Amino acid sequence: MSTLKPATPFTGRESYFPGIGPIAYEGSRSRNPLAFKVYNPEALVAGKTMRDHLRFAVAYWHSFTGSAGNDPFGPTTLDYPWNRATDALSRATRRADAAFEFMSKLGVPFYCFHDVDVCDEGDSLATYEGRLKEMTRVLAERQEATGIQLLWNTANLFSNPRYMHGAATNPDFSVVARAAAQVKACLEANVALGGHNYVFWGGREGYSTLLNSNTRLEQENLAAFLRAARDYGRSIGFTGTFLIEPKPMEPTKHQYDFDAATVIGFLHRQGLAGDFKLNIEANHATLASHSFAHELQTAADASMLGSIDANRGDPQNGWDTDQFPTDIPDLVQAVLVILGNGGFTTGGVNFDAKLRRGSVDLEDLFHAHIGGMDAFARALQVADALRQEGTLEEFRRERYASFDEGQGAAFRRGELSLEALRDIASAGEPRRPGSGRQEYLENLINQALLTTPLA
Amino acid sequence: MSTLKPATPFTGRESYFPGIGPIAYEGSRSRNPLAFKVYNPEALVAGKTMRDHLRFAVAYWHSFTGSAGNDPFGPTTLDYPWNRATDALSRATRRADAAFEFMSKLGVPFYCFHDVDVCDEGDSLATYEGRLKEMTRVLAERQEATGIQLLWNTANLFSNPRYMHGAATNPDFSVVARAAAQVKACLEANVALGGHNYVFWGGREGYSTLLNSNTRLEQENLAAFLRAARDYGRSIGFTGTFLIEPKPMEPTKHQYDFDAATVIGFLHRQGLAGDFKLNIEANHATLASHSFAHELQTAADASMLGSIDANRGDPQNGWDTDQFPTDIPDLVQAVLVILGNGGFTTGGVNFDAKLRRGSVDLEDLFHAHIGGMDAFARALQVADALRQEGTLEEFRRERYASFDEGQGAAFRRGELSLEALRDIASAGEPRRPGSGRQEYLENLINQALLTTPLA
Amino acid sequence: MSTLKPATPFTGRESYFPGIGPIAYEGSRSRNPLAFKVYNPEALVAGKTMRDHLRFAVAYWHSFTGSAGNDPFGPTTLDYPWNRATDALSRATRRADAAFEFMSKLGVPFYCFHDVDVCDEGDSLATYEGRLKEMTRVLAERQEATGIQLLWNTANLFSNPRYMHGAATNPDFSVVARAAAQVKACLEANVALGGHNYVFWGGREGYSTLLNSNTRLEQENLAAFLRAARDYGRSIGFTGTFLIEPKPMEPTKHQYDFDAATVIGFLHRQGLAGDFKLNIEANHATLASHSFAHELQTAADASMLGSIDANRGDPQNGWDTDQFPTDIPDLVQAVLVILGNGGFTTGGVNFDAKLRRGSVDLEDLFHAHIGGMDAFARALQVADALRQEGTLEEFRRERYASFDEGQGAAFRRGELSLEALRDIASAGEPRRPGSGRQEYLENLINQALLTTPLA
Amino acid sequence: MSTLKPATPFTGRESYFPGIGPIAYEGSRSRNPLAFKVYNPEALVAGKTMRDHLRFAVAYWHSFTGSAGNDPFGPTTLDYPWNRATDALSRATRRADAAFEFMSKLGVPFYCFHDVDVCDEGDSLATYEGRLKEMTRVLAERQEATGIQLLWNTANLFSNPRYMHGAATNPDFSVVARAAAQVKACLEANVALGGHNYVFWGGREGYSTLLNSNTRLEQENLAAFLRAARDYGRSIGFTGTFLIEPKPMEPTKHQYDFDAATVIGFLHRQGLAGDFKLNIEANHATLASHSFAHELQTAADASMLGSIDANRGDPQNGWDTDQFPTDIPDLVQAVLVILGNGGFTTGGVNFDAKLRRGSVDLEDLFHAHIGGMDAFARALQVADALRQEGTLEEFRRERYASFDEGQGAAFRRGELSLEALRDIASAGEPRRPGSGRQEYLENLINQALLTTPLA
Ligand SMILES: [Co+2]
Ligand SMILES: [Co+2]
Ligand SMILES: [Co+2]
Ligand SMILES: [Co+2]
Ligand SMILES: [Co+2]
Ligand SMILES: [Co+2]
Ligand SMILES: [Co+2]
Ligand SMILES: [Co+2]
Repeated sequence: MSTLKPATPFTGRESYFPGIGPIAYEGSRSRNPLAFKVYNPEALVAGKTMRDHLRFAVAYWHSFTGSAGNDPFGPTTLDYPWNRATDALSRATRRADAAFEFMSKLGVPFYCFHDVDVCDEGDSLATYEGRLKEMTRVLAERQEATGIQLLWNTANLFSNPRYMHGAATNPDFSVVARAAAQVKACLEANVALGGHNYVFWGGREGYSTLLNSNTRLEQENLAAFLRAARDYGRSIGFTGTFLIEPKPMEPTKHQYDFDAATVIGFLHRQGLAGDFKLNIEANHATLASHSFAHELQTAADASMLGSIDANRGDPQNGWDTDQFPTDIPDLVQAVLVILGNGGFTTGGVNFDAKLRRGSVDLEDLFHAHIGGMDAFARALQVADALRQEGTLEEFRRERYASFDEGQGAAFRRGELSLEALRDIASAGEPRRPGSGRQEYLENLINQALLTTPLA
Repeated sequence: MSTLKPATPFTGRESYFPGIGPIAYEGSRSRNPLAFKVYNPEALVAGKTMRDHLRFAVAYWHSFTGSAGNDPFGPTTLDYPWNRATDALSRATRRADAAFEFMSKLGVPFYCFHDVDVCDEGDSLATYEGRLKEMTRVLAERQEATGIQLLWNTANLFSNPRYMHGAATNPDFSVVARAAAQVKACLEANVALGGHNYVFWGGREGYSTLLNSNTRLEQENLAAFLRAARDYGRSIGFTGTFLIEPKPMEPTKHQYDFDAATVIGFLHRQGLAGDFKLNIEANHATLASHSFAHELQTAADASMLGSIDANRGDPQNGWDTDQFPTDIPDLVQAVLVILGNGGFTTGGVNFDAKLRRGSVDLEDLFHAHIGGMDAFARALQVADALRQEGTLEEFRRERYASFDEGQGAAFRRGELSLEALRDIASAGEPRRPGSGRQEYLENLINQALLTTPLA
Repeated sequence: MSTLKPATPFTGRESYFPGIGPIAYEGSRSRNPLAFKVYNPEALVAGKTMRDHLRFAVAYWHSFTGSAGNDPFGPTTLDYPWNRATDALSRATRRADAAFEFMSKLGVPFYCFHDVDVCDEGDSLATYEGRLKEMTRVLAERQEATGIQLLWNTANLFSNPRYMHGAATNPDFSVVARAAAQVKACLEANVALGGHNYVFWGGREGYSTLLNSNTRLEQENLAAFLRAARDYGRSIGFTGTFLIEPKPMEPTKHQYDFDAATVIGFLHRQGLAGDFKLNIEANHATLASHSFAHELQTAADASMLGSIDANRGDPQNGWDTDQFPTDIPDLVQAVLVILGNGGFTTGGVNFDAKLRRGSVDLEDLFHAHIGGMDAFARALQVADALRQEGTLEEFRRERYASFDEGQGAAFRRGELSLEALRDIASAGEPRRPGSGRQEYLENLINQALLTTPLA
Repeated sequence: MSTLKPATPFTGRESYFPGIGPIAYEGSRSRNPLAFKVYNPEALVAGKTMRDHLRFAVAYWHSFTGSAGNDPFGPTTLDYPWNRATDALSRATRRADAAFEFMSKLGVPFYCFHDVDVCDEGDSLATYEGRLKEMTRVLAERQEATGIQLLWNTANLFSNPRYMHGAATNPDFSVVARAAAQVKACLEANVALGGHNYVFWGGREGYSTLLNSNTRLEQENLAAFLRAARDYGRSIGFTGTFLIEPKPMEPTKHQYDFDAATVIGFLHRQGLAGDFKLNIEANHATLASHSFAHELQTAADASMLGSIDANRGDPQNGWDTDQFPTDIPDLVQAVLVILGNGGFTTGGVNFDAKLRRGSVDLEDLFHAHIGGMDAFARALQVADALRQEGTLEEFRRERYASFDEGQGAAFRRGELSLEALRDIASAGEPRRPGSGRQEYLENLINQALLTTPLA
């Protein structure tokens, strides 16, 4: 992973954010809402810049396609000027202009997209392929102009009604083939744009009712589909990481990629573990009854922590609310796992997050991203300080020390039978368990949150 | 699996249910609350008796140890006469008398227990081993007298404070060894009693906070522990099935055996898939955001559906309320999966269920079990009728027919590359998806519930 | 409440359901999916026809506006022929034709609508008022032709982006006034169509974040708004019931009308209790962590049970999935409360339910409603049988008998001071509590479900 | 409310925390885990000391009765030396010594207790009354010695099996009378100890199943009970505040005091609004699907915010986990509401929180309380800074400005009919709604969290 460079500011044929210049780091006391208070891309943390640690990406779909603001009880409330053109490719090009203007002003090194975010798919496969190819050229130009890179792209295999019963897991083979055609085009776009990862999120891969479903066949088909995609990707020169993004439900009532543990098991059983890692989304973790850090740790334990989708849900409901991440204490727990895993290699922090429906000004896009980036930057500072200080790690090391040598180590090596273990136990009751010290450890986190220097 | 026999009525030194005789099948219109309305053990369904299909087991812990009725805000409300003896072995023997009197009157062919259900463990390993051995003798006598068999036993590795930080996953090796000693004794009891299965439920195998936990080491230790147990079990002649019972949380905040998919992945990666299957508990399924049928289907798809713990939770809270199962429509979905999987082999239906705290009469134990057994018997009738009628299966078969031959079958065999799939798709948009017909299929279930003959 | 008549079949300029005739009652063993198996409108239950008991209504929005099938990850999958006309009033008239053809074939006596369901609102208040008036004429004609009556209508004060921050609770007074104009027009339509009730559901009446909200002012404004609406309705001759439909969240993160108890408290404190009752929706109950029966009982205890929205949610997620009601045991609990409250007066059973996204055939509309109507009809039979049989009621009466006379009755009359109560208690510990017999009572319900005659 | 004084250190016959001295404020960079990093009782915030703002109280039950550490799957893990005495009153006295030693070392001005926390109740009413009277004398002595005051006490009407079917809502009048005797004794203890508030929490006031319940009668009885208690309390000189603590469920499946809105409605309808306010518990709020701040705001809007029980739940499960509060951003939202309501009068911040089961050392009691007190102190600093800075308040004021005068104000005064409102609306569509600016406002909170000076 080479060191990332600042983005070069970009404006297309017209400026969509004319009053707003590049967002600068102004320090925590700045009263300028359009400045970073913590995120200083050049600042060094543990020998690496914040930019290189966090590898921020903007998500094309939530911020530029203009569907944000809709919900089951009302249409979009956003009126984005770049979406007003009537011709599909003009609209798509203006959207790309807006996106790269925004991203270069925000100063992120990466972006992510679904195929249909960058251009409407049209009414035939040929049209779809042609438009995607054309937009790949447009995006490549803007990548070149700005230095912004493609963290990952993916095929939207869930919005078109043809996928109502699934894509790779559709009961009709012709829909599976159609989905494959889309993935093929997306892999080609990825290679052309130098993508670092390629993502699968199975929004319709699951079932609505067992009464009409063959879940075994569907999951076997999913594996066959992924193998074909992997083979094709590798054949055309994709050297990045394939990622699966788990989510327990929504839109499908039950999705096969429920959580990290489920996907890890699936990948191993299906011979996909060598090429695939996980893209962990915070709100998907909470929807699966896990914490964000839990899902990250599960992936890390399996050596499969690839990338993350940053956002937060509302603990008071069961929807994927995709709010921007602002809960710094929660992010500290997440970043502790990420740093403990050695940081990102091909992955990064993608803001799969959207404005609240009532946040209808273009300026709100900046507030939202600035807030999320500052929150992660602060979490990075605090997590690094905790690691430098070392008490957490030392506590953990001592707690498990009995497995480092002697009988504990022999047990771990599989050398002790149940009889041998019983004989060890017969020597006497284990000593009274020590305190797990959860409250003390939580206090350490809070103290680090309060006292870690801001810059 | 041989055909099961009716239990022979049993009374110990004193009768604990003197006013209640063997529970008979009296048909659906009987006004006798202490009679089966549907469960007729000798009735044939699909060529097998109800007794052989359902293989009911009573859970020793909820019904006889006397702790039922306690909750976080109050102690037990039950005052069971067999628990009044002050000497541990006398109390244990009376409890066994009560259990076998109850079970033989209820007419179940099986029971299940934790080691510490049958006798208090005492204050040393030697005492524990001695008592368990003595009670194994007592139980064997009563099995012999009644014909009731051991569906499974298990070691309670969660109640004793020594396990507060885990058993097989404890940070202290000496606790792991102590847990192993308990499992060793339980496996020996199992073999002595002719147990059909042996269960692991990891009530403290998980973590309270990541801050003090090494989750990777803990899960590796869990695997080492299970391998040692398996090897020892096989070495002393255990030929039954090892079972893991998944549960997402409670008592541990996060338990490693979250759900079926998690456990299946773990077993495969750890080389345990050949000896282990799953014991699926209804309420654990719902706590993991799944339906009972979902968890059963997940296990069946992996050829790992072993046995079930029958109960129900309250959808309005997140606790393992362990109510007796009475929701017949829900059980129909479950039994459809079980019959579709060929029925039970070594497994059965264990009532891991307890009386409500206010149900304080001994008679309530009968009401509760009768209700649960009738509910399962009815679900069996209805599920069998649906299978005989065949519409569901036929609908499903047709829905996936495109994978039976030609290109669909080639795809399933892994013979189609992404390019080949794309070329197939280029022939034209897939035909408009047919209706999934969920409402129609649900109506079929309700019609079967209304019209399947009761006897 | 007079006795309802069968609907007269109706077809508009063209038939939208040409292959389907009036749905007949054919008994539980009919193999015709397009027939009622239980719902026999003329059958007598407790001296009243099923039609008069259940007072079924079809919801215009889910079944005819054509938005059904959309979700946050994809557009509508339904392609309803009546929605293809390009002119708003033509489309609206065809939709009315389809609705009345469907409803008259289904044989329901009632329907319900939002203003914008029957016609797009257009781009000015005047257009909106004109179209609603014109459609009121069209609907009145079809009511006349079929005999189908208006159970209730309501103003959609949540879809239009102008309501993104609330309607009656909007921080901008001009939006409040605009909402009032809509309610005024809807009340006039109601009176013109002889509506039995008028409903308020506050889909945007709540808050997204406390940081920008004045919740006290907003709720006072809501009360002022409702008082103005009540006064106007009464002034133009509305003699029916005003209803509030509680819902805890969605679309607004927190809605003010959280549940029945919240709304009852609000109505009493705001002087609205004389004119308003509650419209209880099953899925809204479950979203608020209550059972459907709980919400009904809460309303009944306050003499405020007005009408119901029939559907069901998915207990595995937190969304208002609005599935058709098919869970007969659950409906028995609901109907027991409704019958215990004396049945409906102005209210009825409105199917606020929608097809699953994959149920894309027009025929599915029939399957779904037939299933829901049969489920309610069966619940009515069973609940009535339980009431006739009387054990539940008798059990309850005896359980509370100590309050019928003597000191218990004096306590209820407020005649015993704490000192007097203490002196009563000093006579000795209360007798050991009797069993609550929950399992036995649940068994009674299941037995009634199995044995209540189908016709 | 007079200014509170520091507690005078106290040790009973023996010291239970011999190695630990009074906890001092040492500032945020202190490495001493047994020191306050933020809570400086003498520090002034908005003209009042932190001590006077926060009015901290320790909860006797979680920290001193020794039941902490138990859960549904295992007994207590704590072995508190003061609980080892075999005689009830000796044990109770030692416990009081331990409590006052701990509280005086911690430096809290208040404590709270249930009757049975301070002494086992014994087996007759007379014994109970005698012991409570004796312990009231013991506690009064220690209050006198330390200056620590009674924030509130309450009667435990949920643990004893006699209350399994309810206390004030029991179906048996004699249990209601027994509960009244307990409340009478507790009110007398309160007056003797100069209690500032008296609390009712209805842990068994609700129902397990509607099948055996008369919910209307039960809730009327609850009101009669509360009126009798209020009248008696006032008659013996209690001039403090009566408080009801809402909780939606647990232990009772459905509790009548579900949430703040439910209780407020109940108090108003039952004529209790003049004497009663609410005690809002954070974890009870989240169990009811609300945020803590939501419940506080609901109480404040009704002028019924009395006191708070500070803790936090685990968003990943549905149990009342009662963890110590450490989530500072969440507490800032809560303290903003409390300060906006003018701060506490008779109420305070009671730590209704317990150690994790694995936190088995006496020292952990200090870590836990220090962490909670520092978290609240920090939230107080940040919330005050936000209020001084004024942007939030100004934003809110402007947002609702249209109701301050003219037609908006007339509407609020109830002077505009629906027709008048409609005529206002006919002037033209409301201006496009402004942004709600949620992300910007959330960023302000995070900035204040980072930049508010620590001292
Ligand atoms: Co995502
Ligand atoms: Co998401
Ligand atoms: Co179980
Ligand atoms: Co369980
Ligand atoms: Co509704
Ligand atoms: Co709804
Ligand atoms: Co509390
Ligand atoms: Co609590």
